[in-house]
Amino acid sequence: MAVYTKVSAEALSAFLARYDVGELVSMKGIAEGVENSNYFVETTGAAVGGLGPAGEHSRTRFILTLYEKRVDIADLPFFLGLTAHLSHQGLPVPAPIPDRDGAALQQLEGRPACLIEFLPGVSVSEVTPALARAAGDALARLHLGVEGFSGTRPNTLGLAGWEELAYACKAQLSAIDPALPALVAEELAWQRQTLPADIPAGIIHADLFPDNVLIQGGEISGLIDFYFACHDRLAYDLAITHAAWAFDDDGLYRGDPVAEALLEGYRNVRPLTAAEHAALPGLQRGAALRFLLTRAYDWINTPPGAMVTRKDPMAFARRLRHYQLAS
Amino acid sequence: MAVYTKVSAEALSAFLARYDVGELVSMKGIAEGVENSNYFVETTGAAVGGLGPAGEHSRTRFILTLYEKRVDIADLPFFLGLTAHLSHQGLPVPAPIPDRDGAALQQLEGRPACLIEFLPGVSVSEVTPALARAAGDALARLHLGVEGFSGTRPNTLGLAGWEELAYACKAQLSAIDPALPALVAEELAWQRQTLPADIPAGIIHADLFPDNVLIQGGEISGLIDFYFACHDRLAYDLAITHAAWAFDDDGLYRGDPVAEALLEGYRNVRPLTAAEHAALPGLQRGAALRFLLTRAYDWINTPPGAMVTRKDPMAFARRLRHYQLAS
Repeated sequence: MAVYTKVSAEALSAFLARYDVGELVSMKGIAEGVENSNYFVETTGAAVGGLGPAGEHSRTRFILTLYEKRVDIADLPFFLGLTAHLSHQGLPVPAPIPDRDGAALQQLEGRPACLIEFLPGVSVSEVTPALARAAGDALARLHLGVEGFSGTRPNTLGLAGWEELAYACKAQLSAIDPALPALVAEELAWQRQTLPADIPAGIIHADLFPDNVLIQGGEISGLIDFYFACHDRLAYDLAITHAAWAFDDDGLYRGDPVAEALLEGYRNVRPLTAAEHAALPGLQRGAALRFLLTRAYDWINTPPGAMVTRKDPMAFARRLRHYQLAS
Repeated sequence: MAVYTKVSAEALSAFLARYDVGELVSMKGIAEGVENSNYFVETTGAAVGGLGPAGEHSRTRFILTLYEKRVDIADLPFFLGLTAHLSHQGLPVPAPIPDRDGAALQQLEGRPACLIEFLPGVSVSEVTPALARAAGDALARLHLGVEGFSGTRPNTLGLAGWEELAYACKAQLSAIDPALPALVAEELAWQRQTLPADIPAGIIHADLFPDNVLIQGGEISGLIDFYFACHDRLAYDLAITHAAWAFDDDGLYRGDPVAEALLEGYRNVRPLTAAEHAALPGLQRGAALRFLLTRAYDWINTPPGAMVTRKDPMAFARRLRHYQLAS
């Protein structure tokens, strides 16, 4: 919810001179994203003979991202390569813009930085079955679209990561809610004993909440924020997306029409194998536990009144209980 | 530096239906403005037969402002009337957009709200004599442009306001700097004894810092943030603008070429009377004291680590000493 690194108009103008995007017209720091600093940037566009009218819309408006300390610089080539690949596949993913030398990853105001395609659309707050179906459809297309992409990144938020987070939170979990230590301990024990199924894996988005989906005219116009993307089971990504879309901000189930539309939207594009179908309930429990633990860790380690809004871990405790009862 | 009131895409879409601006395309919370919540809003534009091509650029991009607690709602008709008047005079001032019933002031998410014209341009950090001259020119045109505007608002940050702020800060001024209590007391005594000159008065901007001036292609494309506008002596506005442009962020004098270009730019459009010329040094001391006191008050009353960036009061103590020596 903040701009951490201030970029002057002079520095941005000099930076933009590396690109075929024309002159700086406007820049506004955006109050979005917890991890990085983002600016909305408008330019006059490329000179005649440059990009041509087809690229005009996307080539006068950009998001400028400066990567702050929580992002590992070593991961940036993976994130930028992945979004470039997906955009090239025709998916509505914001492409990194290369400069005249072909480099997308730059430095600005002492931070790694990237000029990124601006996509239209807005994130909705009210999830309908039609939107959930569209989200499922889009996630399946992402999973098909990553085929052929050679980069990879391990999932640091798998079982081992959950154990670390639970250990780091341990004594303070009960301060959030007295029932939390037992809920976490029991679920960790269950997850430990559940052998990972031999199901298809690939690069997953791993954070496809409604916040990260742009909608225009009832259709998906953008899939954004790939900074948790990693290699894991594809059905785990569907489990995360289910946990993200089938519940409201308080963790209350939105009902079967939304949840089933999401799964149907996915399966219509990429049918699940029998093993994936069987593994899904356990993966949903894991997805709920993953966000419960990261939120609990952030809750404990973020002072009240800090610049970042704390998100309630209990919204995912409710999801976890829902999945436990259903599995 | 924050968005205080969250506006959902659904609420904004319903809000925009009051206007001839088409459908919502994009919205981004802007990390600008200490007082209010601001969103960059893009729409599909008015339908054919509506505004026509001339208004097309300004009618698909907007700033949506939600007025937060520090703004007195009773002042909003003055601020919106003033900017509408100045825009109508051909000045590059963002006009409030009236809805189909002609109302510019609205309610959204429980707060007073206004859809406002989006102006291109960026605020510069490095002030050149050419830009200072353009700022002086623009300020003089503002002073000519307000003629005929019937609204008014008293300046609550005049001598009486300074006395109140100094009283409220009193014991804690020395914690900012040991020299501050004496500097403030002496200057207040001097200002008290200096009878206000009988010089032209009108509606002034009262906060025309480089932050509030948008530049595109070396020319001024926008004069923004009229939320301190009030009735006072026109030369006091020139004094504020001098204090704003002729010194850097640390309060160090940028040199005569910048300072003189500013004054010359102003006088070429609106020559100063002999009485204004004589009053200017005292008004500059007053301008420096005004910002010194509001910054000191905010410094004392803003906890470190709060969402708002504290601005150093000493940058204006340095300006005040500069003006004291020069007068």
